Amino acid sequence: MAAYDPRGFRAPTFHDATPRFRDGSDTPRAYLERCLEAIAAREPVVRAWVVLNQEGAREAADASTARWKAGRPLSPIDGMPIGIKDLLETRDMPTQMGCPAYRGNFPKRDNAAVWALRQAGAVVLGKTVTTELGGAHPGPTTNPFDQRRTPGGSSSGSAAAVAAGMVPAALGTQVGGSVIRPASYCGNFALKPSQGGINRGERQATSMSTTGIHAGSIEDMWQVAIEIARRAGGDPGRPPLTGPAAPPAARRPMVLGVMETEGWAALDDASRSVFEQVVEALRAQGVTVLRRGDHPLLAAFEDALIGMQAMTGAITAWENHWLFRNLVAQDPDAISARSKAVLAMAEAMTPEDYRLRLLQREEVRGRHAALAPVVEALIAPASPGPAPFWAGDVPGQPLKARPTGDAVFNTPSSGLGAPAVTVPLCAVDGMPMGIQVMAQPQMDAQATAIARWMAGAIAPVVVA
Amino acid sequence: MAAYDPRGFRAPTFHDATPRFRDGSDTPRAYLERCLEAIAAREPVVRAWVVLNQEGAREAADASTARWKAGRPLSPIDGMPIGIKDLLETRDMPTQMGCPAYRGNFPKRDNAAVWALRQAGAVVLGKTVTTELGGAHPGPTTNPFDQRRTPGGSSSGSAAAVAAGMVPAALGTQVGGSVIRPASYCGNFALKPSQGGINRGERQATSMSTTGIHAGSIEDMWQVAIEIARRAGGDPGRPPLTGPAAPPAARRPMVLGVMETEGWAALDDASRSVFEQVVEALRAQGVTVLRRGDHPLLAAFEDALIGMQAMTGAITAWENHWLFRNLVAQDPDAISARSKAVLAMAEAMTPEDYRLRLLQREEVRGRHAALAPVVEALIAPASPGPAPFWAGDVPGQPLKARPTGDAVFNTPSSGLGAPAVTVPLCAVDGMPMGIQVMAQPQMDAQATAIARWMAGAIAPVVVA
Repeated sequence: MAAYDPRGFRAPTFHDATPRFRDGSDTPRAYLERCLEAIAAREPVVRAWVVLNQEGAREAADASTARWKAGRPLSPIDGMPIGIKDLLETRDMPTQMGCPAYRGNFPKRDNAAVWALRQAGAVVLGKTVTTELGGAHPGPTTNPFDQRRTPGGSSSGSAAAVAAGMVPAALGTQVGGSVIRPASYCGNFALKPSQGGINRGERQATSMSTTGIHAGSIEDMWQVAIEIARRAGGDPGRPPLTGPAAPPAARRPMVLGVMETEGWAALDDASRSVFEQVVEALRAQGVTVLRRGDHPLLAAFEDALIGMQAMTGAITAWENHWLFRNLVAQDPDAISARSKAVLAMAEAMTPEDYRLRLLQREEVRGRHAALAPVVEALIAPASPGPAPFWAGDVPGQPLKARPTGDAVFNTPSSGLGAPAVTVPLCAVDGMPMGIQVMAQPQMDAQATAIARWMAGAIAPVVVA
Repeated sequence: MAAYDPRGFRAPTFHDATPRFRDGSDTPRAYLERCLEAIAAREPVVRAWVVLNQEGAREAADASTARWKAGRPLSPIDGMPIGIKDLLETRDMPTQMGCPAYRGNFPKRDNAAVWALRQAGAVVLGKTVTTELGGAHPGPTTNPFDQRRTPGGSSSGSAAAVAAGMVPAALGTQVGGSVIRPASYCGNFALKPSQGGINRGERQATSMSTTGIHAGSIEDMWQVAIEIARRAGGDPGRPPLTGPAAPPAARRPMVLGVMETEGWAALDDASRSVFEQVVEALRAQGVTVLRRGDHPLLAAFEDALIGMQAMTGAITAWENHWLFRNLVAQDPDAISARSKAVLAMAEAMTPEDYRLRLLQREEVRGRHAALAPVVEALIAPASPGPAPFWAGDVPGQPLKARPTGDAVFNTPSSGLGAPAVTVPLCAVDGMPMGIQVMAQPQMDAQATAIARWMAGAIAPVVVA
């Protein structure tokens, strides 16, 4: 555990190891053993994993080793050790969702993305810690760069496992800010794809959730996403993630816009400063960067983002309420007080309240769509500063509302169904902070190409 | 078991029993006992049920009796005995989906609609037979009007239970033609709601499935639908079923269109004759009925329906394929040869094949939307004639493709996401045949109002 400095930090990567799998100087099995060593060293403090399937992973890695040796890997991620957020079902490990109600739950089937990963030869190593049911109630994971701080949520374990060098990639899911925010706090690259772009399998119950990818490199991030999409497609009724079979080449944008969101006013000075330095660096590279005052459509979009966090929160609460109600009906202690508060909010709503919020969401989507000819993408802080401190609930005290941090910079992409890629470009107070690139829906490859360019062209920005 | 004659047949109803619950001359418990008597009498031949929860139903009926006695029913369907298709989860009964892979499956939670029914006081009596996973492979149910014939599928047991007088209403689900077709074959009223109008709960995995209602009367049909929607809302991201809290009043349309579909040419003479007699009766009542030659947009819509059955079949096969693959991976004998053929079809597709079919579906939806100012609703036979004969698979012989009948008249409403209501207006060869009313998406109440008018204003049509 040491202060994070993006100028020197290197997360594990996979794409650059595979040439040595071909010539035999390295193997997927040896790669896996290095991951297991990192886990043995760091897991007692980081606590990223709910369960590991070491034996199954070793078998899968040996099979992958044989395929590479024979010159017939199933895909570029054949042999990649990967973590799976414990909301997604796996046939060989339980799926317990960070929730007492699912203790021991073991449906023995693979989520669509997990199934696709196995088809591509990836090594499904274990289940990573999630907040309870993907909500606000935290699990035990700590931030790999400062154990007193949260790794973010809800994909806490996936973000921390990558940051701690335990795996080169891990699956997360995002409903509000559950992929991009923890990635920002943990210095990961991450893709929150367009709504519906990656098949959620059994997890179709909410209209704003996606399966996303945490990775130590943007190459691995894209490769995992496209290998899943090529095999399992998108959600029912939605176009699958579309883009090149290899990571998109870096592409310098001509025009970007800044998205402030309703979180802008509360951003601390240091975090605002690193973001403004990134904006200046982009301009120094010849990119036009529009601010809200520069274009009436950008201003109109920002106006529509006011209230977005409450609106998206209400939509998701409503969509989850029969599930939560079922759990509580079976056992009043099945879910936490935080989850019960979400249920209570939903139970005060009517179907028509919900419908009104869907209409509001459509209006914001319309204002975002209007920006397509104005800016190639929007950039924003990926989180409101670095990871906050979190030492657990204090008995007798009121529950802290957001122990894994605030999703205010993430609810726009979730509500808009738009792809977002975060780049670990900054450090504040010795902790990572990401810069996100958000594009129009279905433009995941374009967002990735811009993010890849930024990662190469913009020097990391560090503020004490 | 007797030949069906719509001029004399009366299915059980609930809405007209409740006044006697108020004055104490009848009770929900007594109503339930009459249902149980009908089940005891007919079930050995009809085989509509997988499992009954008689004890739980009696407890629920007694509680309902007390509420009515106290003048405080939870809803107009408080005390209504109802059957639940065995694809929907119930906390008190297993959910086995007509499939060996789910034998003994018992998740102990309520599907969103089942949960809503209990909130409304309904008596969840049992699980009704479904074809395997809602597909083509049939269950044991026979048609209540001729045991040599299929009741239709996939909601076989729900349709038959209502027709046999066992319950006044039952839930079904439709992906292709699984609500409206069996209702047509069994002489039920039924609503296949707009896509997303009734929350499917855990069953969100396909883009064209809906939870629908079979009933012996259009009043009960609507009341069940609206009581569910008012409590559980619609699917995530979709507007809930919207309409009056009581059944919509009958409404004579000014202009209807005939929808021929790609099934028209193969319709037998008797079935075509009863349909044409209905068209003539509508005209005699002053309704303008347009045929495909009368309006270029109607002709353009019919043109777009050619190939719809194959297109919708491919979409659903793709959407189910990771689930089916998971089942087969666990046990090669987990699903039938018919279901395996669907899996093989999906595995020959790519995500881009799927995306192309979604685009085609959008195009047909566009042509349907263009009809909104042209016709108030479209009418069509609800099935290609009466229920076909079915005596089971013959070992050594090729599998019959559609043992529960052909969905060719139903895939349009499924693919369009449009509401359809079938009215038991006709008899052919001593068997029921329905006439369906299909409206624009979200216009479920309008479709129901027209169907209610037809049920009252159009004399039943019988052809030997």
